[in-house]
Amino acid sequence: MKLVTTIKEMREQVRRWKAANLTIGFVPTMGFLHEGHASLIRQAAEECDKVVVSIFVNPMQFGPTEDLASYPRDIDHDKGVCLENGAQLIFFPEVSELYPDGFSSFVNMDGLTNGLCGTSRPEHFRGVCTVVTKLFNIVQPDRAFFGQKDAQQLAIIRRMTIDLSFPIEIIGCPIVREPDGLALSSRNKYLNEEERTAAHCLSAGLNIGKSLFENRERDTHAIKTAVLARISQEALARVDYVEVVDPDSMQPIEKIDNAALCAVAVFIGKTRLIDNIILED
Amino acid sequence: MKLVTTIKEMREQVRRWKAANLTIGFVPTMGFLHEGHASLIRQAAEECDKVVVSIFVNPMQFGPTEDLASYPRDIDHDKGVCLENGAQLIFFPEVSELYPDGFSSFVNMDGLTNGLCGTSRPEHFRGVCTVVTKLFNIVQPDRAFFGQKDAQQLAIIRRMTIDLSFPIEIIGCPIVREPDGLALSSRNKYLNEEERTAAHCLSAGLNIGKSLFENRERDTHAIKTAVLARISQEALARVDYVEVVDPDSMQPIEKIDNAALCAVAVFIGKTRLIDNIILED
Repeated sequence: MKLVTTIKEMREQVRRWKAANLTIGFVPTMGFLHEGHASLIRQAAEECDKVVVSIFVNPMQFGPTEDLASYPRDIDHDKGVCLENGAQLIFFPEVSELYPDGFSSFVNMDGLTNGLCGTSRPEHFRGVCTVVTKLFNIVQPDRAFFGQKDAQQLAIIRRMTIDLSFPIEIIGCPIVREPDGLALSSRNKYLNEEERTAAHCLSAGLNIGKSLFENRERDTHAIKTAVLARISQEALARVDYVEVVDPDSMQPIEKIDNAALCAVAVFIGKTRLIDNIILED
Repeated sequence: MKLVTTIKEMREQVRRWKAANLTIGFVPTMGFLHEGHASLIRQAAEECDKVVVSIFVNPMQFGPTEDLASYPRDIDHDKGVCLENGAQLIFFPEVSELYPDGFSSFVNMDGLTNGLCGTSRPEHFRGVCTVVTKLFNIVQPDRAFFGQKDAQQLAIIRRMTIDLSFPIEIIGCPIVREPDGLALSSRNKYLNEEERTAAHCLSAGLNIGKSLFENRERDTHAIKTAVLARISQEALARVDYVEVVDPDSMQPIEKIDNAALCAVAVFIGKTRLIDNIILED
């Protein structure tokens, strides 16, 4: 497993691959890789000649009171996951490599970044868009793979890729879940045993929403109320949001015509978890 | 002279050139090309295998009261300039090709975009950074050529290219002037005969600033006062700014240590013209 820490070395590798007419798949991550990431790497390896995984805990996408310092890290474990799932290279830069002195450029978006996680994390998506732009320019992939768990992020990256004319195909990949339904997340590591049990309420709530939809409920107020009620049964849960939104615009809708996304963000103790489910016939 | 209007066709051409291992030089313009643009094209043709000139009057960089609708255009003339000076391709997209429905992403910058033209044109550089990001992603040049006449823009593009990790070298090229000193600009077209004569005051003022500097004046207040006095002799001139700034940060300085940029923006009648001169030993 080749590990590259500088932009210069990364560019040289990319140049060699492109000169050899090889396609590049890219999986941007913040590390502490789990089976969700592994599924992205495997899909990239199936579709592309070479797979680059970036591991970078991006300070710009954390708010001042968020968990930047405590975000879990384990590069040795991550190397193993990358190797076993078919990646050829890990891009693992220091913060100073991506944000040199005098750094002052930003990529931002109207619309899609409002609502859902954008409400409680107002600067988050500016950090995501900026770092993904940088990583796209450094890795120059043909395809980039993102998890559907971060549904708003995926919609934003798709929009940004079109808007800024990146010559890159964005591939969204399904959520990977624990046997009880909990969506895999590096932040699950924060949960103690009691909290881990409680965290089941997110997927349980979403499944109730999906059942209602499958029973022809199209009124989003009714769906949200049922999801909220299930999550609120859990004493350790504090709801940030329960929303039903248009899957393209990420804006709340009152009635579901074709498809919708039901998305939740819930604090379990101090840990903020997100999850979502697609509602469509 | 090949003229391409769609992103798709541009990408295909770029792919063919890159597959043939040819380097691409890029000259982004708003068209109505003059000898300043021609000098950029010639330099690109000297340094690169293929030269792309984009011609796009970018609505996003015009303020609501500015001259978007009246901005001069002459694509037939522009084709000739491109051909004569060594370009192979003109990228000439419609507005709807670069800004499709739902467009909502932006590239912005702190610091460098404040002051000088950023003060009277607050959204201008957001539009410049966004469209240049798009054009860089579409044309994927090895080198991009910009005129020193737009000194703040050049500094911003250099900063953005580093910050967002574009694999592109930015080349700044000298100002081209009329025999009387007037910096070439597509907007000179707006000037009637009387205004054209009056417009001499910009370069005349800057030259007085340079003379003072060459006579060891290092106090920027003295330099600005002399430049302003010369420009103000011209009854048709209304000064937007006269500034002496650090050439990297574009922030005003009081005393010149090594080098500085003296920059002016002046309305001649209704036409806003800019010019600048580098002060260094």
